[in-house]
Amino acid sequence: MLEVAAALEVVLGRTKRLAPVTVPVTAAALGRVVAIDIASDIDSPPYAKSIMDGYAVRSDDAAVSLTVVEEVAAGRVPTRPVGPGQAARVMTGAPIPDGADAVIPHEETKSSGNTVQVPRPVAAGKFVLARGREMRASEVVVPAGTILTPAAFGLLAAVGRTEVPVYPAARLAIISTGDELVEPSACPGPGQIRNSNGPMLVALTARAGAEARALGIGRDDKAALANLVRQGLDQSNVLVLSGGVSAGKFDFVPDVLREAGVEAHFHKVRMKPGKPLLFGTRSDTLVFGLPGNPVSSFVGFELFVRPALRKMAGVAIPGPMFVPVPLTADLATENDRPTYAPATLKRTSGGLRVQPAGWFGSADLRGLLATDALIALSAGVVSFAAGFPVPTLPLDF
Amino acid sequence: MLEVAAALEVVLGRTKRLAPVTVPVTAAALGRVVAIDIASDIDSPPYAKSIMDGYAVRSDDAAVSLTVVEEVAAGRVPTRPVGPGQAARVMTGAPIPDGADAVIPHEETKSSGNTVQVPRPVAAGKFVLARGREMRASEVVVPAGTILTPAAFGLLAAVGRTEVPVYPAARLAIISTGDELVEPSACPGPGQIRNSNGPMLVALTARAGAEARALGIGRDDKAALANLVRQGLDQSNVLVLSGGVSAGKFDFVPDVLREAGVEAHFHKVRMKPGKPLLFGTRSDTLVFGLPGNPVSSFVGFELFVRPALRKMAGVAIPGPMFVPVPLTADLATENDRPTYAPATLKRTSGGLRVQPAGWFGSADLRGLLATDALIALSAGVVSFAAGFPVPTLPLDF
Repeated sequence: MLEVAAALEVVLGRTKRLAPVTVPVTAAALGRVVAIDIASDIDSPPYAKSIMDGYAVRSDDAAVSLTVVEEVAAGRVPTRPVGPGQAARVMTGAPIPDGADAVIPHEETKSSGNTVQVPRPVAAGKFVLARGREMRASEVVVPAGTILTPAAFGLLAAVGRTEVPVYPAARLAIISTGDELVEPSACPGPGQIRNSNGPMLVALTARAGAEARALGIGRDDKAALANLVRQGLDQSNVLVLSGGVSAGKFDFVPDVLREAGVEAHFHKVRMKPGKPLLFGTRSDTLVFGLPGNPVSSFVGFELFVRPALRKMAGVAIPGPMFVPVPLTADLATENDRPTYAPATLKRTSGGLRVQPAGWFGSADLRGLLATDALIALSAGVVSFAAGFPVPTLPLDF
Repeated sequence: MLEVAAALEVVLGRTKRLAPVTVPVTAAALGRVVAIDIASDIDSPPYAKSIMDGYAVRSDDAAVSLTVVEEVAAGRVPTRPVGPGQAARVMTGAPIPDGADAVIPHEETKSSGNTVQVPRPVAAGKFVLARGREMRASEVVVPAGTILTPAAFGLLAAVGRTEVPVYPAARLAIISTGDELVEPSACPGPGQIRNSNGPMLVALTARAGAEARALGIGRDDKAALANLVRQGLDQSNVLVLSGGVSAGKFDFVPDVLREAGVEAHFHKVRMKPGKPLLFGTRSDTLVFGLPGNPVSSFVGFELFVRPALRKMAGVAIPGPMFVPVPLTADLATENDRPTYAPATLKRTSGGLRVQPAGWFGSADLRGLLATDALIALSAGVVSFAAGFPVPTLPLDF
């Protein structure tokens, strides 16, 4: 049976970045990955600029009483140079007049009429941002591969970009399978339960930065399921089916996928929870069959689907990236397969700590409610003292 | 001058949670905080349920060759009890027939005709999820204050909720002030620079889970600025002005705010960057005047505005929550005020580490591009060896 690392290699090996699209630099673009190098069109600042309210002076001038020759507001242009014995009043952001090379902050000066008393000496360049200090025209300031963070928004604006080519969010379609399922709005009759995986997968997809469309419930009826599967394949970059992939007599999913032209690459992974996990492709469209058990579905999504969505969206290191985090308490478990257990990150005075959710194998969604990480535990007997660092996958990064 | 902690206390003391609204449980609700206790309307599972494909048997029965009395698919209801010497074929998710109390997985059995060979003994309850094991009718399963994570989506669906009362996203209006500013789409003329803070603040707001509206550039003209300020106050929960709060002659902002009925609570904080930082209120609407320098604006937003937005949105611990993270390298700085320096989190084999961005006081947006954390350094000489844990505020949590 495939190990998790090998399975992930298969998945990411079949996952292609989506074709870039150009989007406006608005809140909806947050987190997208820039597809091309973005260069500056100007020197920034475009002029030597005061970064304080004060007086622009010559640093080589020893005079402490200066004649104020003009007042330069931000957005205005100096009209005369500053000579020896002279100063110009400058506001924050205003250009520095020719001749001047330093600014003395307003609060260190004393003015009366058009004369100002300044302290000496002052270093050349003090409180002045030189022209082109931040960026030069044609210099790349937002390289391809940059994630659109708030700082990237600021930089794009600084170089005049109101639109930017990015890798788009992947579109993911979700089919929940099982004759026992009813929609959440319904009251379950005898033998029925509500479809909770569908809404959970919608939220997992949104958290992964992709766009989910729930296609509803696929009944245990081959033709109906095949119809939903075709819809999902035709309109999405990723199709996720929850349930219907184990060896049960009424689990049609593998058959239906084959008939829809999906090539299966694996259908089991040596992990707990979630051993039955199908992965296939139809050209560039990925198909995941996740177990119906909510915790298994959750873990399978975070380990395989989320990295694939991130790679499609242009993220250079799509994860899952585990980092060692010390345990809050002793931990002893025994698992027949490598195990990914829900856990909670704790910010303590000693640093980040991780607390297992006390879940080891149940189907219980409630145990997942407070969790924001998974910890990886090897197969066999695991016994760690509090403080021991365990491989941890934060889910909110 | 107010210390950061005291200033934050003033801000959060004036910040009220917004009135709850009822929203559909769709991707847009991710991250919202639930405003009321949500109870289950049913026992879940509503019946004892098989969690494997296999045979439902009586654990007190020693027989190893059993007659299969029926087949129960998921979504179907058993029609007869399982007696001694009998078994029922059950699919994952199917109800357990009366009499049976354990499931033996399909792969451990051998069947021929309507007889099945099973291994013995089997423990009572094995692979059976008892009725109500996950939740009981009327039990609170999603308490008020829960953040809508993917697991919460699943739980809400499980208890029949397709809508839920949450604290809404705060609405934040942004005014960038300064006569030197032009819109990002324009080419700056002499003495002009592009408005990069506006787009950066839009993205900071979105990252904080709130909704931003950029009102554009407020010129250094009292009447025009007053008009924008009134718009911002009337339509938003938070008004942010960037620039125009220092002591410069043309900085009207404090005057304009006073005349618009805003009560100022402080206008300086002992911190670097960003000492001039105005905070005021007009009834429940918060007003922040952030410095025009992009890095100062960024830091001021993360330390004060983001926690206020989170409190409005119902988050119990709105932050900023610092956690000690070891430094990647030696660090030596000297600061005249407590300093919040941009930094980058590194996931290493030794655990999480933080690397200062090499920024200490500049206006440079480029230094912010790769940062995803702030580190807090006390005033005075700071000299830490690599590995020393410094207070770190992750910005993507």
